Amino acid sequence: MDKENFELEDVKEVLDGLLNDISPSKEEETKIKEFSKKIINELYDELNNEKLRHLIVDIVQVGSTARNTNLKNDYDIDIFIRFKKGVDKEVLKETVLKIGKKVIEKLNGKYWIEYAEHPYISAKIGRYDIDIVPCYKLNWGENIVSAVDRTPLHNEFLKKMLKSNTLNNEVRLLKKFLKGIGIYGSDLKTKGFSGYLCELLIIHYGGFINTLIGAQKWKLGKKIILNEIYNIYKLNKDYKFADFKDPLVVYDPVDLNRNVAAALSKENFCKFIFYSYQFLKNPSKDFFYDYHKNLNEKLGNRKKGMLFTLGIRRNKDIVDDVIYPQMEKLQKSINKILIENDFEFLRCGNYADDDMCYLSWEFLVWELPNIKLKIGPPVFNKKGVDNFIKKNDKYFVKDCNVCAYVERNYKNVDELFEAIAEGKLKKKISYPKYVSPENAVIFKGIYKEYE
Amino acid sequence: MDKENFELEDVKEVLDGLLNDISPSKEEETKIKEFSKKIINELYDELNNEKLRHLIVDIVQVGSTARNTNLKNDYDIDIFIRFKKGVDKEVLKETVLKIGKKVIEKLNGKYWIEYAEHPYISAKIGRYDIDIVPCYKLNWGENIVSAVDRTPLHNEFLKKMLKSNTLNNEVRLLKKFLKGIGIYGSDLKTKGFSGYLCELLIIHYGGFINTLIGAQKWKLGKKIILNEIYNIYKLNKDYKFADFKDPLVVYDPVDLNRNVAAALSKENFCKFIFYSYQFLKNPSKDFFYDYHKNLNEKLGNRKKGMLFTLGIRRNKDIVDDVIYPQMEKLQKSINKILIENDFEFLRCGNYADDDMCYLSWEFLVWELPNIKLKIGPPVFNKKGVDNFIKKNDKYFVKDCNVCAYVERNYKNVDELFEAIAEGKLKKKISYPKYVSPENAVIFKGIYKEYE
Repeated sequence: MDKENFELEDVKEVLDGLLNDISPSKEEETKIKEFSKKIINELYDELNNEKLRHLIVDIVQVGSTARNTNLKNDYDIDIFIRFKKGVDKEVLKETVLKIGKKVIEKLNGKYWIEYAEHPYISAKIGRYDIDIVPCYKLNWGENIVSAVDRTPLHNEFLKKMLKSNTLNNEVRLLKKFLKGIGIYGSDLKTKGFSGYLCELLIIHYGGFINTLIGAQKWKLGKKIILNEIYNIYKLNKDYKFADFKDPLVVYDPVDLNRNVAAALSKENFCKFIFYSYQFLKNPSKDFFYDYHKNLNEKLGNRKKGMLFTLGIRRNKDIVDDVIYPQMEKLQKSINKILIENDFEFLRCGNYADDDMCYLSWEFLVWELPNIKLKIGPPVFNKKGVDNFIKKNDKYFVKDCNVCAYVERNYKNVDELFEAIAEGKLKKKISYPKYVSPENAVIFKGIYKEYE
Repeated sequence: MDKENFELEDVKEVLDGLLNDISPSKEEETKIKEFSKKIINELYDELNNEKLRHLIVDIVQVGSTARNTNLKNDYDIDIFIRFKKGVDKEVLKETVLKIGKKVIEKLNGKYWIEYAEHPYISAKIGRYDIDIVPCYKLNWGENIVSAVDRTPLHNEFLKKMLKSNTLNNEVRLLKKFLKGIGIYGSDLKTKGFSGYLCELLIIHYGGFINTLIGAQKWKLGKKIILNEIYNIYKLNKDYKFADFKDPLVVYDPVDLNRNVAAALSKENFCKFIFYSYQFLKNPSKDFFYDYHKNLNEKLGNRKKGMLFTLGIRRNKDIVDDVIYPQMEKLQKSINKILIENDFEFLRCGNYADDDMCYLSWEFLVWELPNIKLKIGPPVFNKKGVDNFIKKNDKYFVKDCNVCAYVERNYKNVDELFEAIAEGKLKKKISYPKYVSPENAVIFKGIYKEYE
């Protein structure tokens, strides 16, 4: 697959038509930067007032709005206060909370405290969403103390690379495309592409179309190493990079032991290849606007199997990034039992709202006669045969194995799900801490979209 | 597995109790031999009368009654008229039919003409079932002309071997045991052990119990070469015998290029090992008397799936040995289609009576929602993807493959079987010559034993 396989003129026409709609205006760009500078200045002032200025190195704006790679109507302002490395963690926390609160109050905003590795201030002033985050000032190549310490270095790197290539709009196209096909975001629910990953891909391939064409040659385990990395770290071409087993590996220029695409699932890796190909072959704006949602609607317009859903009460304090992996683990574990019991499903999925977790299955087979064929060991295995016929009364020889007719444990999905909700299957299913199916509510037969 | 694994005293006790019931009395043995001699003498007389004596070498009684290996109440008398090798085939046929008929009439019997490789006379005189079969006189090691030519040589070999060892009753035990477990007979319906095979096994292992114990070491492809073969043909111990791919290979002492166990199926090979083991561990008369029938009754006493049967009118002129392999072939071919269409069955079987062939399936799943998941090529295979989405509208990416929801061709077994009966599946199913499912009658839901 190469450029000549596609009608790129048509593709470009579609993209030109999009840019106006996805990029903020120059005016908007300027406003957001000015507002950001204002906050930073207020923070410096407050630090001076409190005689705490000596604790920090500097205050920087990071994130996509700092680099002009944000989509229109994205008013996120990320401000990082960089502390000197000697500063005590507790002092760092106290300082940010104290100074941050004062500044937000002065600017008539609302704020609340969020928790990542350190606590930080999240605020709303007018239409702007502001995060004020503390971190330590690192130099290139230094070991990180916490994950946020990398962010200002990412910002430095990207600003340099994107300025020299003016690829900002190309990044926006890629983000919008990934949003359209439902795989933008590296949270554990989406398992897709982070904004930072989009920026690195655009830098590597030199543009949106080239990234899509490049992906047509990807295989599972694809490794991407930006040229710049060799310059920064003065590496030979045969340098041995760390080994990752992920579907896509993109080495972080800030930390070569980190894969920027670690959160990307195999399925989403494949979706990107597939929809890129479809878009290049049949270019259309549709891919950028709710493509994924519309696709699900189209897929839903068909004959249906029987839908069963386990509804599990959710602990509101537990975030999506904890809930979703646990839902997934539980569902995989239940899938195994379903297959063991011959209940075949067409698809399964999960979804959580504020109150509940929903695990759903669309079944093709959800009732079976109360009999099953159990296949035992080959007749040549005497010990196995002895054990098998001790346990199974109605045995006979089929092909080369001793087999038996046995009654099934569950003759329909209702019975099986009731046993799960009653906590009877703890030996066979892992009941995760925050998504335990004990006392789950069982919904049956009402078709509801859950993807 | 060896002798010391079993309580052989208990086994012997059971066998002693059986012998009286399965062996003919001395009186019976004498009577059948005398009657056989009488027929042979009448045949010689008639040949002399007709001046045809010069065509033949001799007339011999063969078969189990000739060797005292028949079961009680088996009154089969097999008489072979051995012609000189130069005699024309047509002359051979005419002679046997003419002479045979006259003799049977003289003895007040009823006769009819049967057809194997040559036609032969089959007759009933009192309680005796008599076959008068023509063949050519062969010497040891000579190429055979037709399969029946071997029979007198088998007889010669066995008489010699059995006389010197007095193993006759051991042969009877083995035959009765195999009958009990339903695998006696080398016809293409039974696919079990022939009488001749039983006799060779007893000679090889030196008795019934030893044969059963010996079988516990059998693996698929087991090869048995009687010691006597090396003497007869003056072979070295490292002689390379013909290669057969059958589950059990027993070289015919009369023809080393023939496997006496060729008709034995893999399943019956395994049944023999399994039931021998069960009998040795828990010796009981039950194994010798309708064990197989009783087992099926026991297996049948359970919860049931849905039974579907295709009833196919049978051409009465076509014998079981043609019908059964064709039924089997057809059933295998339909099984494939059933699996393709996700209709899971617990078991299947076939059976023919004089008028009809019955192919039956006991289904676990016989109705499905009108939707199925079609799994296409991996997204990396562009040509495959192009083709797949051209044919399938509702496509999406699952794991690494493009998939689609499609409507199923048959949403229940009724529809599928109707299509078969209407002759619509000739491209996918082989419709055998004598067991064509076209216009088959479909029975559903009535449970009927068919094994």
